[in-house]
Amino acid sequence: MKFQNRNLGPANYESPLQLSTVRGDNIFNFVDDSERLIFDLSRENYDHCLKTGEEPLCLEKSGPRQKLFFDPKNTTAAVVTCGGLCPGINNVIRGIVMALHYFYGIKKTIGVPYGYEGLNPEMGHGFVELTPDKVKDIHQFGGTFLGSSRGGQSVATMVDTLIANEVDILFAIGGDGTLKGVDAIGEEIEKRGAKISVVGVPKTIDNDIDLIDKSFGFETSFDVASPILRDAHNEASGAYNGISIIKLMGRDSGFIAASAALAMPTVNFVLIPEMAFKLEGPHGFFEALEKRLESKKHAVIVVAEGAGQQLFEGTDVVKDASGNIKHQDIGVYLKKRISEHFTHIPITIKYIDPSYIIRSAPANSSDSVYCSRLAYHAVHGAMAGKTRFVVSKVNNRFVYIPITEVTKKRKKIDLESEFWFSVLQSTGQPFFLG
Amino acid sequence: MKFQNRNLGPANYESPLQLSTVRGDNIFNFVDDSERLIFDLSRENYDHCLKTGEEPLCLEKSGPRQKLFFDPKNTTAAVVTCGGLCPGINNVIRGIVMALHYFYGIKKTIGVPYGYEGLNPEMGHGFVELTPDKVKDIHQFGGTFLGSSRGGQSVATMVDTLIANEVDILFAIGGDGTLKGVDAIGEEIEKRGAKISVVGVPKTIDNDIDLIDKSFGFETSFDVASPILRDAHNEASGAYNGISIIKLMGRDSGFIAASAALAMPTVNFVLIPEMAFKLEGPHGFFEALEKRLESKKHAVIVVAEGAGQQLFEGTDVVKDASGNIKHQDIGVYLKKRISEHFTHIPITIKYIDPSYIIRSAPANSSDSVYCSRLAYHAVHGAMAGKTRFVVSKVNNRFVYIPITEVTKKRKKIDLESEFWFSVLQSTGQPFFLG
Amino acid sequence: MKFQNRNLGPANYESPLQLSTVRGDNIFNFVDDSERLIFDLSRENYDHCLKTGEEPLCLEKSGPRQKLFFDPKNTTAAVVTCGGLCPGINNVIRGIVMALHYFYGIKKTIGVPYGYEGLNPEMGHGFVELTPDKVKDIHQFGGTFLGSSRGGQSVATMVDTLIANEVDILFAIGGDGTLKGVDAIGEEIEKRGAKISVVGVPKTIDNDIDLIDKSFGFETSFDVASPILRDAHNEASGAYNGISIIKLMGRDSGFIAASAALAMPTVNFVLIPEMAFKLEGPHGFFEALEKRLESKKHAVIVVAEGAGQQLFEGTDVVKDASGNIKHQDIGVYLKKRISEHFTHIPITIKYIDPSYIIRSAPANSSDSVYCSRLAYHAVHGAMAGKTRFVVSKVNNRFVYIPITEVTKKRKKIDLESEFWFSVLQSTGQPFFLG
Amino acid sequence: MKFQNRNLGPANYESPLQLSTVRGDNIFNFVDDSERLIFDLSRENYDHCLKTGEEPLCLEKSGPRQKLFFDPKNTTAAVVTCGGLCPGINNVIRGIVMALHYFYGIKKTIGVPYGYEGLNPEMGHGFVELTPDKVKDIHQFGGTFLGSSRGGQSVATMVDTLIANEVDILFAIGGDGTLKGVDAIGEEIEKRGAKISVVGVPKTIDNDIDLIDKSFGFETSFDVASPILRDAHNEASGAYNGISIIKLMGRDSGFIAASAALAMPTVNFVLIPEMAFKLEGPHGFFEALEKRLESKKHAVIVVAEGAGQQLFEGTDVVKDASGNIKHQDIGVYLKKRISEHFTHIPITIKYIDPSYIIRSAPANSSDSVYCSRLAYHAVHGAMAGKTRFVVSKVNNRFVYIPITEVTKKRKKIDLESEFWFSVLQSTGQPFFLG
Repeated sequence: MKFQNRNLGPANYESPLQLSTVRGDNIFNFVDDSERLIFDLSRENYDHCLKTGEEPLCLEKSGPRQKLFFDPKNTTAAVVTCGGLCPGINNVIRGIVMALHYFYGIKKTIGVPYGYEGLNPEMGHGFVELTPDKVKDIHQFGGTFLGSSRGGQSVATMVDTLIANEVDILFAIGGDGTLKGVDAIGEEIEKRGAKISVVGVPKTIDNDIDLIDKSFGFETSFDVASPILRDAHNEASGAYNGISIIKLMGRDSGFIAASAALAMPTVNFVLIPEMAFKLEGPHGFFEALEKRLESKKHAVIVVAEGAGQQLFEGTDVVKDASGNIKHQDIGVYLKKRISEHFTHIPITIKYIDPSYIIRSAPANSSDSVYCSRLAYHAVHGAMAGKTRFVVSKVNNRFVYIPITEVTKKRKKIDLESEFWFSVLQSTGQPFFLG
Repeated sequence: MKFQNRNLGPANYESPLQLSTVRGDNIFNFVDDSERLIFDLSRENYDHCLKTGEEPLCLEKSGPRQKLFFDPKNTTAAVVTCGGLCPGINNVIRGIVMALHYFYGIKKTIGVPYGYEGLNPEMGHGFVELTPDKVKDIHQFGGTFLGSSRGGQSVATMVDTLIANEVDILFAIGGDGTLKGVDAIGEEIEKRGAKISVVGVPKTIDNDIDLIDKSFGFETSFDVASPILRDAHNEASGAYNGISIIKLMGRDSGFIAASAALAMPTVNFVLIPEMAFKLEGPHGFFEALEKRLESKKHAVIVVAEGAGQQLFEGTDVVKDASGNIKHQDIGVYLKKRISEHFTHIPITIKYIDPSYIIRSAPANSSDSVYCSRLAYHAVHGAMAGKTRFVVSKVNNRFVYIPITEVTKKRKKIDLESEFWFSVLQSTGQPFFLG
Repeated sequence: MKFQNRNLGPANYESPLQLSTVRGDNIFNFVDDSERLIFDLSRENYDHCLKTGEEPLCLEKSGPRQKLFFDPKNTTAAVVTCGGLCPGINNVIRGIVMALHYFYGIKKTIGVPYGYEGLNPEMGHGFVELTPDKVKDIHQFGGTFLGSSRGGQSVATMVDTLIANEVDILFAIGGDGTLKGVDAIGEEIEKRGAKISVVGVPKTIDNDIDLIDKSFGFETSFDVASPILRDAHNEASGAYNGISIIKLMGRDSGFIAASAALAMPTVNFVLIPEMAFKLEGPHGFFEALEKRLESKKHAVIVVAEGAGQQLFEGTDVVKDASGNIKHQDIGVYLKKRISEHFTHIPITIKYIDPSYIIRSAPANSSDSVYCSRLAYHAVHGAMAGKTRFVVSKVNNRFVYIPITEVTKKRKKIDLESEFWFSVLQSTGQPFFLG
Repeated sequence: MKFQNRNLGPANYESPLQLSTVRGDNIFNFVDDSERLIFDLSRENYDHCLKTGEEPLCLEKSGPRQKLFFDPKNTTAAVVTCGGLCPGINNVIRGIVMALHYFYGIKKTIGVPYGYEGLNPEMGHGFVELTPDKVKDIHQFGGTFLGSSRGGQSVATMVDTLIANEVDILFAIGGDGTLKGVDAIGEEIEKRGAKISVVGVPKTIDNDIDLIDKSFGFETSFDVASPILRDAHNEASGAYNGISIIKLMGRDSGFIAASAALAMPTVNFVLIPEMAFKLEGPHGFFEALEKRLESKKHAVIVVAEGAGQQLFEGTDVVKDASGNIKHQDIGVYLKKRISEHFTHIPITIKYIDPSYIIRSAPANSSDSVYCSRLAYHAVHGAMAGKTRFVVSKVNNRFVYIPITEVTKKRKKIDLESEFWFSVLQSTGQPFFLG
């Protein structure tokens, strides 16, 4: 069966949760491992399956199981947060700690400082014990209470550390790289025959994890960006032929840029990595921009950080120490090119890069709700002995998915989707830029 | 076929939207009337349909149609907003006006002032013309640019007004009563053989419209409530055995109360209309509250306005002029009963009712995005000649649903759902109150 | 000399602060006890003093003294917060703790829980030690970290407690009653020949402490009220002849109501305790309100809680247990009277009471700056052995004033002042209401 | 007499304001030209004047005069906004328009688009008429409703334009350069014997106008910066030896940086133009920073844009077209130098420049109040025929000051002041950096 989550073994302990197994008693029911949700809800796909007898793709419903793999009173969990900041990390940490403590009464929860570095004893970061009292207010703050770091550490070393510290469950909050990392840790654990559950909570402010509805922190990101765009409009309209360029996050996917523009309809152009726009010539960006300036005397441009990489082709490729191509800064580049192009009319350009301001903000209410629920589901799955899975929301329902299924590729904006069309409708920018 | 939307007649005009009909050209495709989405995505239901040959319930996908019923250059639309305030009304008005003007280039859009009253010439409110320039900034403000009113007017009179003013499309933004009203208008139009499309955009801050994922303004409502709950916690913890009671909206359904509590986990108790809790005795609310005060010396209680009506049974029933039972104020009642009960220990109670503050706030970013998209879809459906439908989101997709399907009953919180369970997990309140 | 602050005795210890005594070295100078600032800066008063030889009223400049009365390493301080909540209390607590610890390195700071109750051992509240680590984040939250209570305790008992716990300095954060209380404590200490400094930090959200520019939390109060007024305007304009009544704090003085109305110029009427307005008849409020409704079809009314007490004269006087006259709720009363009066035209009234929401909010930036500086000055004065004084800002400068001078009477809005005139200019309400 | 404001001539028209001339009638009194306020309120200065017979420096009290120079029904006013954005500009515009219209009922108010450019007909910007209806909501938005531009235009041309359009009063909202410009316009008008009043409303987000308490928008600037600093702390503490550098506005004066740091005490270092700090060596910044990292593992640095220019001495001086030295970007420079210095320990640096985000924000409540009152006073002074003055607040009172007095030099932070000392107390940064 596709999308089948792994289990550490038979679940023999009774859950301490006082839940029900029958409908109609006003008490939530334990979720059974067999409960599944259809992924593709188009009637077309239903008919296709009906006709061909093909199994529809299904996802495992998340929630508390009646039988646990781990005996709570002897269970030790650990939490690690990796990669860049994203609103809501502290809410997830808090939710995990509270759920482990109050729902299951587990023995101990360890905080791993500074990302995967914290699982490498050589870094000397030590551990911090996570108690309800320590985490009860952290949801009010952005950032990560545990600290973070980028990049990986030796998988063997990290597994050694987990075993040495008798960790039974590792919750890893992080993006694509982190999830691949924790899956590798899970694989190594399996190889060693150890019984440690590893769980990923997808964190990507870019919202580019495949299959899932949205990642936590994403709603906050464009909520924080939104008044910045409103005021960038003030900068643009405050000068004759004023132009504001706002660079927003989005290395491979333009979800933040597009959603922020939809949320604040003073935006006139959204440029995203998924678009192969050109600057010069007919149907180029300059042409569209000039038309806008002519009619309205100002323009607001939102550009995702990964947009326009096609413009740099042919220029000298700069690589970093690891040999990766270093992306050029599209915001700065755009500002330069626009300045150079518009010599025939007076213009004023303001360039704004609020990335760090956005990613370090506290979660808004919508994300706070989401983070708590993600954390609870992560804990329920882990206690039942599931491993190498992520918890997420698909078609508005919480599910468990094998990590490997969501890390195969990045989620991107489909330029033919209703979502992107709504952005075009809101901004009024021409199709041809796409 | 179930959930089949009505059409005014054959759509013969070409849409002015420059869209595509093929995949792969990076241009959004016109949506075909035949496109459908499965409503129930449980595997169980799939298997049931497979076995029995029963048709699964499907919803019509919304979006721009290639053929229009109305000729844009001769089309006049009208917009009316009814009932209580809700964040996002202005965003919807703005979206409708912009879409009609810029996407379809229709002749004129009329604003109907003060709800259905505005369709009764006797009230003397007149009309206001809605132009892009007039509505371009209104999304930044709460309330309704058009004014609103409660209650209905004679359907015949309203239809007379629409016909007299040569209105082709009526967009009604409102709740359960408004939607029933606009459907009645549509029915009367049909009887008269007129060709006027009537469209409902469901507005209910309580989020209690059946079938749909959420109504616009709902996210904002608990986003605005959330810091109020945070600070109500300050009031509670600022006094010895301090108790804060916050009454939130929710006449029949406790979604705002429950979501706000989830978003701000300093809440200790959530009381909603769906719960049949009692105050006194074992497993009563006072017992749970006292236990909380004993251990923490303060408590934060969120109560939905419609909660606890069972407590008033046996008391004198007060009816209003129309004979409806007047709900007692549960917040004030709770404050009184708690004061009377806790004579054996010193307590301090603060009662907070932020309802008007919440409902008159501007839409947050998430709702802003939602409102724009709802408005666009409403316009696309109307231009295609659909009538007596609502536009909404179900399973995270935009759909058109016959009005009659969503007004059959109210949506309520299922006490056995994962959502309510997450509230119990967050607050720590006992199951037995439910 | 008037306004002379008391000292516990000669200051013999060198301040550990590395400050200067000469100008020009870019290092702040210790402040000398003799430094004074003129209170009345009108030229008229200057000429009067010149002519009559009268001493102008002067205030003592606050700041760090070169010599201390207390030996830091043997000093114990205590902090108590009394009365209702007000934004900024936690900032003041934090500032005091940080200043005592980092600037002076004192031995210990004690937190007294739940106001003056905490100085009565019979209440059994105990003490909490205040360390930098414990208070470092509290400024981000409203309320009081220490808890509060209303009313007094036996002065003798409180002094016993201070002496028994070897407290050298007591910082009391509170309003008029609290300040009188701490002055009484200081008097009792003097009688007993003890050497304990008592310091008041005036806290009154109403801004009604005499002589001083403004009390902390006041700026935040109308900053929080401001968007509520903006949205109350949405409620008013959202209905035909819609009226929003917002009750704001202000028992004896209308500063919050007046400032909030100035900050949000959608307000049409401000009613404050200082005004002797009437409702009926020519030059009455109803007449002015009707005129407003006629021309604009909506009205926003801000009323201070203590306004309109003259309207209740002749009605039955209700007294509380202590024999004090219980104020009637002017907001509810106004709503009732307006409803009863306007039977000849349709109106809709919305009544909003955001008091608890305002007073429990965290301090805004302006107040945060103010609170830190107040706390630092309070600490400098206390360490120098001053006692029975408040720290505050007068004519934009920080000063020390004897408590007795600021508790003689309440500060009120002068109806002939430029400030009130600016309110009339902003609202457009007629003079005659005053 | 020093600080004597100029008048266009005798004021012969009765003010239409229904004010009083006697105390005690609860109606605001007209202000007399002779009313003065002492500038220096130190007792020391008082004694000095007493002894020497020297006149104390006095400022003219602002407010409505009983006699007007201009006949309202024949008066045309114009408003121009120049230079960079600053929160509150729209509030001032709104206040001026409302006061001219509702208080004085003047004939017409002209909006001059895009700063002084708008007074040069060659630019072709035209005029816009300012009515209450047009400006009633603009206070809710940042930016300038009129547009702005930098730099001057020919004074003769601008005076020609004013005369040609029969403008009687010109209100110029702008900084140092704008004020000098409007004074030059006033001088030219005088030379020509024309009777046009020119009024300056000082606008400088840097708060660097001499003599005055604070300029409008300043409070908002650090209010907007404050949560950015809070979250920058999350960035710093989220990485091992994480460093956040936030560049704030302040070309010559560090008021924003210093106040923002005071408002958000998570800041550890504030670097301002007034400080002659060095980076290397003993008592250098690197030494202090390393000490901080050693003890806390993270640091938040706020740097004013004009800080550290002494560090660039000896480097190649870059001049712009006008021959002015172009300031190097201290934020980028600091980031580079810190990276280069700290090779012996791992560090992570985040650089944040929120300048455009801050200056384009709407005014907060405190500034809203201030802007309205400034606008009213500006109008009262102009109608009375005063010219070449600014309106402002000194020692917490509104006054009129000759433009030439406030443009002599910039206001700077006095490193020996209590204000700067409070910043050092809050951050804990060493004196020696100054």
